[in-house]
Formats: sequence, C-alpha cells, structure tokens
Amino acid sequence: MRLRKIKNAKERLQQSFGYYVDQSEEYQGRWSELFGNFAPIHLEIGCGKGKFIVELAEKYPEINFIAMEKYDSVLLRCLQKALSSNLPNLKLVLADACELTKYFAPSEVERIYLNFSDPWPKKAHEKRRLTYVQYLNQYETILKNDGLLIQKTDNRKFFEYSLSSFSQSGWIIQSVCLNLQEEHPSENILTEYEQKWQNAGPIYLLKVQPKRKEI
Amino acid sequence: MRLRKIKNAKERLQQSFGYYVDQSEEYQGRWSELFGNFAPIHLEIGCGKGKFIVELAEKYPEINFIAMEKYDSVLLRCLQKALSSNLPNLKLVLADACELTKYFAPSEVERIYLNFSDPWPKKAHEKRRLTYVQYLNQYETILKNDGLLIQKTDNRKFFEYSLSSFSQSGWIIQSVCLNLQEEHPSENILTEYEQKWQNAGPIYLLKVQPKRKEI
Repeated sequence: MRLRKIKNAKERLQQSFGYYVDQSEEYQGRWSELFGNFAPIHLEIGCGKGKFIVELAEKYPEINFIAMEKYDSVLLRCLQKALSSNLPNLKLVLADACELTKYFAPSEVERIYLNFSDPWPKKAHEKRRLTYVQYLNQYETILKNDGLLIQKTDNRKFFEYSLSSFSQSGWIIQSVCLNLQEEHPSENILTEYEQKWQNAGPIYLLKVQPKRKEI
Repeated sequence: MRLRKIKNAKERLQQSFGYYVDQSEEYQGRWSELFGNFAPIHLEIGCGKGKFIVELAEKYPEINFIAMEKYDSVLLRCLQKALSSNLPNLKLVLADACELTKYFAPSEVERIYLNFSDPWPKKAHEKRRLTYVQYLNQYETILKNDGLLIQKTDNRKFFEYSLSSFSQSGWIIQSVCLNLQEEHPSENILTEYEQKWQNAGPIYLLKVQPKRKEI
C-alpha cells in the first residue's frame, strides 16, 4: 500500500516511544526480550494502516504482535491507530519482507499474516509477489515447526498462484475458504481494504503450514 | 449421477460389442492389450452421460480413454452417445471407484478426471467424497509417477475440501482456476452438467500430481 508521502514520517516514527522499534534487526532472536515475555509472536507482513493488527493486539493480549511495513508514511498511520490504545504486546517495524531473516531467527515466529498483498499481476513481476518461492523459503525459516501462515486476498489470480506456489514448495494446506463473506467467521478481523471492497467480489482465505523441519 | 432406471440396462450394455467391457477386472494390468496399443490411458471416474469423455475420445485418437460409472442406466446413456461415433480408443466400465485397484495395476493410468462428482456435503458422508483420503491413496497407486488428476466442480465447499485433502495427502498442486468461465480455456470440454449450470456460479478446476513414488 502506498499513501501520500508524509513529511518526516521516519523521524516521527522514531520520536514515538513504545511502539516503533528502530534498528529492529538488532532484535533478531531477541524479540521476547523486547516484549518482556515468551508469548508467541505473530507477524503481519505489510500491515498497511494497521486496523487489522491493532484490533488483533487488543483482542489477544496473550500474543505478541509485530506489524511490519516497508513505507514509513503508511507505518505512521498504523502508529497513530495504535496510540489510541495501550498495547504492550504490539511493536511496529519499518522493513522490507525480502530481508525477513535479518529480523527474525529460525523458528522465532509462530504465525505470519499476509493481508491483501500487492498481487503484482505481470509475469515479469512474479518475484515481487509475497508468495514467490524465495519469500516462502524465508517464511519457512522463521516459522516454528507447527507455525501457520494465513493469507487473505481478493485477487483471484494471485490466490491461484499462491495455492500452487505454496504446494510446490512443500507447504501443506490446512484449510481454504473461497468466499469469506459467505462464511463470515466471527474471528475474521477486517482490514481497511477488506472493509471497503468486501462487496466487490469473493475474498479468499488460505491457511498453510511449512513442511516439517527435520530435527 | 442418478437417472431414471432403465429396464435391463446391464443386459443392454452387455449386448453392445466394442465399447462396453464386461468382467473388466480381468483387464487389470492388461488394458493396453485390450486397446491393442500402448497409448496412455486416461480414466474418467463417474462419466455420467458421457458427453465429456466421448468428445475427448473424438478429439484425441492417440489417447486411450476409459469411462467408469457405477450406475448401469447412466452408463447406457454414455454408450448410446459413443455409438454415434467410431471410437476404438474408448472403453466403458461399470464399476465403483472404491474398488479402483481391482481394475488397474499400479502406474497403469496416466490421467484421472473427476467431473462434478457428488459433493456429499454432510460431514457424516465425508468418506464417500471422491477426494477423501482413501480414494486418493488408490489414485496414487494406479497413476504413473508423472500422472495428473484433473478435477472440476461448481461446489465451493467440496472444492475447498478437495484442496486440503490432496495437500494433506502429499499431492502437489500443479495449477488451480477459481473461475473457469472467466478464463474459458479452449481445451475445456463441457460436461452435460457444466453446460446446464455454467451461468449459475464459478466452476473450479484443479490439476494435481501424486507425490513422487520412490523407485
């Protein structure tokens, strides 16, 4: 998600104490230390304006949440949303998903959320899709053995691609929903995008687990 | 698919020479002998009235097709359709899919089609779904290593179930289409059911391969 550029967004993030984590790669393998407890870590990659993860953090105080976003102006909007609550279980990280293993140690994360990621429809941009094999390999590294990745999208072709991509990388489909609105599960927290576009066509949901690591 | 019961359907099948294969379990491991050549064997499980497989057999004379159906009155309709063509590459078998390995030797089949199979929506009937694990194990046995299974359905929940079921049995998704009508691929041959219901909602397509056998 791109937003109108906000002046000095990064500086404004850095001035906020508590939520925003500067130099976040220094916490690789030490996130529990930062949170001050050993609760499971759930990571949203591309948190956008943050409605989804802020609501999750409010609802599940026993889970530690990390909101990752690569655009500072967007992450600032997420910060503003978080500031209206007191959420010791939420941290904000300005980072690009292509360097995920710099930020997390192997098996440090229990769950990853990908919500309405950019579908990059052109074949030439396949490598940028967040379900391209090289991303999956990083997810597999940072996820625990029984970890879960949950993807939501309304882009049919991106979802079709993702199903094949996960499967061909050895991930196991735990469940699929091809019309989330018809099911309206009570645990579904809407993103800003989802709230706006939920009547435009089916929203797809996928829950997958990485192939079991040899121990 | 059930049809109004046709009197003496089985006897009428047996009287037809050429297409219908009586005592078909005797050809387990010997289908090439029956066809008189070593062309690849493609099997449709639940061929219904036969529009799909008869058209395939007309279009691809270099492939040997087997139409399997458990209701004699239904298979008779398939026979009647086939009789208007001369198709040495098509055989009709009256059999239940739950005994598949009685009819085919390991690796004897190159492709399996499941078209609009009964979704058996009740959880209590899960074992009857043609993508239940015990069916998948039989498909895996009779398919070659690089064999393919192609499923079409318009039942969302059955398709969601099938995706998980194949994945959890180690099958690899080669491709998925979540709205076949929007794609209208030229190679898509419509079944009777599909022709009738194609405007009612999305038709889903799945191509999967069994996990590679150790040699």
